[in-house]
Amino acid sequence: MIFEIPVEVASHFEKGELVAAIAQDFQTNEVLMLAWMNREALTLTIESARATYWSRSRNSLWLKGESSGHFQEIKEISYDCDGDAILLKVKQIGAACHTGERSCFHNKLNGKFSE
Amino acid sequence: MIFEIPVEVASHFEKGELVAAIAQDFQTNEVLMLAWMNREALTLTIESARATYWSRSRNSLWLKGESSGHFQEIKEISYDCDGDAILLKVKQIGAACHTGERSCFHNKLNGKFSE
Repeated sequence: MIFEIPVEVASHFEKGELVAAIAQDFQTNEVLMLAWMNREALTLTIESARATYWSRSRNSLWLKGESSGHFQEIKEISYDCDGDAILLKVKQIGAACHTGERSCFHNKLNGKFSE
Repeated sequence: MIFEIPVEVASHFEKGELVAAIAQDFQTNEVLMLAWMNREALTLTIESARATYWSRSRNSLWLKGESSGHFQEIKEISYDCDGDAILLKVKQIGAACHTGERSCFHNKLNGKFSE
């Protein structure tokens, strides 16, 4: 099965830009984390069906789970209307967050909005 | 009720960086869109309980729904472990996407990953 990187997404890579990648639990739809991808990261993600990101802090490719075992198995990939964001539906092995929390978004703003 | 912008998030604003903001349906957990916020956008979002972003293309604040009526009413805000991404749980009025689709992530990559 050949996947092609859509032109809307590729246009950002051609400009040297990264795209944002949201990982979401494929069953519960919980948002797990947000990270970044360059073309190589997206290609590896597609080919291996395991999420690979571009680490902006380490300036290197980052196979999620390589050291922790907490891989993200890809179930579906979609991209947004202007091609600068990607949504990965994944089966998360273990925790997405390095803190051990399932999601990186485990901190809420204090206060309460209307119900 | 006073909300404070968490220091992890504020540190990015102090460096002149934008943070990524994911809007998610508060009932179904569907991811609707990804946009960007500066400090003023986040402050307005908190104060008005309506999502306001920073438009990178127009270089201006953008109250989502101002022209379309498709506002996003904020139900909950969380932020990730390194403070560079925000998750908004929203009640989406109408469509999130300017194409009329409910979500901006309505295009899937062709092909199929393992079930």
